[in-house]
Amino acid sequence: MTATPATPLLDTVDTPADLRRLAPSQLRQLADELREEMISAVGQTGGHLGSGLGVVELTTAIHYVFNTPEDRLVWDVGHQAYPHKILTGRRSRIRTLRQGGGLSGFTKRSESEYDPFGTAHSSTSISAALGFAVANKLAGKPGKAIAVIGDGAMSAGMAYEAMNNAEAAGNRLIVILNDNDMSIAPPVGGLSGYLARLVSSRPFLELREIAKRLSRRLPRPLHQAAKKTDEFARGMAMGGTLFEELGFYYVGPIDGHNLEQLIPVLENVRDAAEGPCLVHVVTQKGKGYAPAEAAADKYHGVQKFDVITGEQAKSAGGPPSYTNVFAQALIAEAKVDPTVCAITAAMPSGTGLDKFAKAFPDRLFDVGIAEQHAVTFAAGLAAQGMRPFCAIYSTFLQRAYDQVVHDVAIQNLPVRFAIDRAGLVGADGATHAGSFDVTYLASLPNLVVMAAADEAELVHMVHTATCHDSGPIAFRYPRGNGVGVPLPEVPLKLDIGKGRVVREGSKVAILSLGTRLAEALKAADQLDARGLSTTVADLRFVKPLDDDLIRRLIATHEVVITIEEGAIGGLGAHVLTMASDEGLTDSGLKIRTMRLPDVFQDHDAPEKQYDAAGLNAPHIVDTVLKALRHNSAGVQEARA
Amino acid sequence: MTATPATPLLDTVDTPADLRRLAPSQLRQLADELREEMISAVGQTGGHLGSGLGVVELTTAIHYVFNTPEDRLVWDVGHQAYPHKILTGRRSRIRTLRQGGGLSGFTKRSESEYDPFGTAHSSTSISAALGFAVANKLAGKPGKAIAVIGDGAMSAGMAYEAMNNAEAAGNRLIVILNDNDMSIAPPVGGLSGYLARLVSSRPFLELREIAKRLSRRLPRPLHQAAKKTDEFARGMAMGGTLFEELGFYYVGPIDGHNLEQLIPVLENVRDAAEGPCLVHVVTQKGKGYAPAEAAADKYHGVQKFDVITGEQAKSAGGPPSYTNVFAQALIAEAKVDPTVCAITAAMPSGTGLDKFAKAFPDRLFDVGIAEQHAVTFAAGLAAQGMRPFCAIYSTFLQRAYDQVVHDVAIQNLPVRFAIDRAGLVGADGATHAGSFDVTYLASLPNLVVMAAADEAELVHMVHTATCHDSGPIAFRYPRGNGVGVPLPEVPLKLDIGKGRVVREGSKVAILSLGTRLAEALKAADQLDARGLSTTVADLRFVKPLDDDLIRRLIATHEVVITIEEGAIGGLGAHVLTMASDEGLTDSGLKIRTMRLPDVFQDHDAPEKQYDAAGLNAPHIVDTVLKALRHNSAGVQEARA
Repeated sequence: MTATPATPLLDTVDTPADLRRLAPSQLRQLADELREEMISAVGQTGGHLGSGLGVVELTTAIHYVFNTPEDRLVWDVGHQAYPHKILTGRRSRIRTLRQGGGLSGFTKRSESEYDPFGTAHSSTSISAALGFAVANKLAGKPGKAIAVIGDGAMSAGMAYEAMNNAEAAGNRLIVILNDNDMSIAPPVGGLSGYLARLVSSRPFLELREIAKRLSRRLPRPLHQAAKKTDEFARGMAMGGTLFEELGFYYVGPIDGHNLEQLIPVLENVRDAAEGPCLVHVVTQKGKGYAPAEAAADKYHGVQKFDVITGEQAKSAGGPPSYTNVFAQALIAEAKVDPTVCAITAAMPSGTGLDKFAKAFPDRLFDVGIAEQHAVTFAAGLAAQGMRPFCAIYSTFLQRAYDQVVHDVAIQNLPVRFAIDRAGLVGADGATHAGSFDVTYLASLPNLVVMAAADEAELVHMVHTATCHDSGPIAFRYPRGNGVGVPLPEVPLKLDIGKGRVVREGSKVAILSLGTRLAEALKAADQLDARGLSTTVADLRFVKPLDDDLIRRLIATHEVVITIEEGAIGGLGAHVLTMASDEGLTDSGLKIRTMRLPDVFQDHDAPEKQYDAAGLNAPHIVDTVLKALRHNSAGVQEARA
Repeated sequence: MTATPATPLLDTVDTPADLRRLAPSQLRQLADELREEMISAVGQTGGHLGSGLGVVELTTAIHYVFNTPEDRLVWDVGHQAYPHKILTGRRSRIRTLRQGGGLSGFTKRSESEYDPFGTAHSSTSISAALGFAVANKLAGKPGKAIAVIGDGAMSAGMAYEAMNNAEAAGNRLIVILNDNDMSIAPPVGGLSGYLARLVSSRPFLELREIAKRLSRRLPRPLHQAAKKTDEFARGMAMGGTLFEELGFYYVGPIDGHNLEQLIPVLENVRDAAEGPCLVHVVTQKGKGYAPAEAAADKYHGVQKFDVITGEQAKSAGGPPSYTNVFAQALIAEAKVDPTVCAITAAMPSGTGLDKFAKAFPDRLFDVGIAEQHAVTFAAGLAAQGMRPFCAIYSTFLQRAYDQVVHDVAIQNLPVRFAIDRAGLVGADGATHAGSFDVTYLASLPNLVVMAAADEAELVHMVHTATCHDSGPIAFRYPRGNGVGVPLPEVPLKLDIGKGRVVREGSKVAILSLGTRLAEALKAADQLDARGLSTTVADLRFVKPLDDDLIRRLIATHEVVITIEEGAIGGLGAHVLTMASDEGLTDSGLKIRTMRLPDVFQDHDAPEKQYDAAGLNAPHIVDTVLKALRHNSAGVQEARA
């Protein structure tokens, strides 16, 4: 770690209004200081580094040229918004990034008027910016809208849908394509190749030529300072691009680290009479920090690190991550079954499928940020006899919900859904929490829905899914490391819809789905110590439910608790529905469902999030004791 | 109505194998007979006419050239698949289209091996075809995959995502772009303009020129018969298109009604060594049937009609449709509130917003088949002070689920969701049923979720939504006509989270959400007649629930029934969860939840679907009687 860098010019800039009082000649120094400050801050907090480093100049130029916050600036995803936060009144809190109570790792409306739209999931920015632009147009208010979107995010259908509608904004919409040839992983697909050809084949014009071309269509002469720098210009060209075919006025490619190019070009598109404009800016992820530039992932997401060496803090070791266990288990399946294949939507590393790709390069499909396509492509593979595993984080599977319903569930096709990051996710916060998958999947006919209670269970579930050819099957597992149980030598094929009793008791029954099992077992020990003999069952399946087991536990226990890491409508709802269908509540049933609360929980340390959610052992104990006391005078041990 | 047409050549063709035994010179007659047969059939059944008429020649040519079913043919949406059904062994059942037990109005795997992938929602075909192609490639099996997709469907992001990944298929993928400049409504957006320019600006080459160009890249000489028809050729051109930029080999535009062009071109792309190929075919929706050609919607979806005159059967009249009531109510709001605006995803007529567009052309946004964009665009509008109504069918809102969660609910932005076609939908079947919206929406924090019990309630809910600026709000209403209640002169602003008691009783309480209210009231009369005094409440809101009302009804009634037109996880689950949270089940609660069954229900007449679902008055009565008998010896009146 090093001390906070000296940033004399940046120290004078609290908001973009301060920035706009600087002379153009001062902007290079400001950008350099901004970069130093960002490296220092992320060194202390960890977080997303490479993306922000790539847009230091772009951030400076946008706030210099546009009248933020009246002009609405939307950063796609928001990983790259740390320099923006520093320049928009949040510098004093920048070392709280992603900490509990601190700044979000993404843009967030509640944080600043300079964040007009919260982002986190990819490819939303053009749609949102169009909304701003059109609203201003209808109201006759001033204000442009600027979306800054990466080339990776452009692979998502949503971005295309928005571009296809851009004409509605007139000249109020400016899309800045931040082309760093990299999202989280290297880009894939036809568009990526196209952009690469566009950048490499277009002549890099001299700035004089840019000026000439701009003046044909754009209103302002090029900035004087820029005119002097012909020799440094990477240049631009116009015409005939995919973006123009969709109705944009295309400007680019532009060197995104050259302020003397960025400023005049942005001034011109700002004042353009016709529109919408797309500015194609070429940047380098990790720019200006040697360890990031040298790293394969450009320091996309990092732990705290030493600014001098770039060395990141090691995680504590311990049990393997669920992600890794999944990947190894799937590789084992693929070794003996040539029909096993895997699909990821631009997350080969996050899902662990990069390891699968090394073992079976022909059987891993990285489709880019394209969850909708991923799922229906998997459905097609399944319909033709493959055994596809579609590995998508819980929160991103929301992007493909209709495809799960329409293409997989209705047709009863055996697509396997590996749902990583199910439940709370810590520093990434509400936008990345996997809170709804059990609810939105278990309501679908034909689907089998499992949740792994530990890493050994996950191995069994990968095998069970491989064997399950009669319809779709999903299994969820959390972010982070396993609990440390030994992994099975030979995975089990689980009986579909059958849970297991982990601990036998007689008075209290805890029905657990997923990794709250560990807390349920802790709670059981504490309840036993109070004389409340406690059974703990790991249901494994929320659909189909183990009706027999649930019936038996209800019949033989005084209190029943369900616990899950998901929103209302999941396990608790399914157990209650089954129980009431069968009349099990008719003559009295003390049952309580523990689940995620009805709020979007902010980012925080995972243990604090679980505490806030009320899903730890003490909460279970408390719920049991309260239930026993409720309308009941005789439970002395519960009152003790 | 006329008699079945004479179709001597078509009578010899039961499957594509029969078709492929014909001489090329016979195909024109076959296509003509196929068209006649289709017009006759749809005249009897109603259904989708214009789309099928447009692809009679294309259907003939594809099955003639490709080795279906080994070559996998996927019709996007499937509205246009009636001629395909006639040619693939289903002619004898073609007059059962969309009837209970009859053929589906879409392609369906269970119907035929020639339907390798079921469709209905738009823009899935390229992803599915890619799955087939890649699976065959991995397995080393023969078989190409052909996706036929309309220009309207190309506006959806999903199609773009798939095109962006097409290279994975190598030369096994052929996409046929069926460009009729029309989806259900006229097309919108940049792509549409682009395709129009492509068709109008490309020279219509003579067939000799086509042959020359094809031979540069494609393997086969043009068919002799085709060579003779230079003078009729509409022609094709190549190079530099958006599709080529995404990695396709582009061939087109081609006249899609000219078999002598279609056959050689398809033969050539079939045998192309490189790939994937996109064939741009220009067709005319409604082709060959004068009344359809003359109609604005090209007879997209029709009632039974007289083949000679084209006159469609009138619907019976009666109360206005919910769609129409919504549109009129929204127009009334917009008259007094300039911030009210509306968004549709290519369904201006289906949602009633065509009427809104006439009144307020600047405030209606038809974004094309782009539900994801529609929702986030609405979020942007809301963030900038507009009051946007996003009108999307329940089943299509699944396409934008992540945007509802991530861009609307997390940010608590006041987007209004008008959810038409909620619940069962009759002839369109499982793919179009709105079964899941209550479950997937009511689990989200911040959202308010309402369901209209009748058309007057819908008017109140439109007004309530207009007034609700503190966060997102959704209201659902069914397909079809209202129940005939008078519409309010002045709409009410409903209290958020408050239901209403429609009928007071003392023994049985029915908690209804939405339009099952009418059946609940019928059931109440029947129960009263049996001496079981019945209360009926219209909860109006599933989120937030009217806890006070539910608590009171539970406390004062012997049996409680919830009823809703939705899957598990909706109203019933929310009521049960609230009741168990509060310990209301502890000392006995006879409660039953009535909901849609855990199956995808096939198309049928609506009343039969409700009967199969068990959601009519007799089912309610039966559920009450069974509950009263359950574990209870004293309820004589229930046994009578």
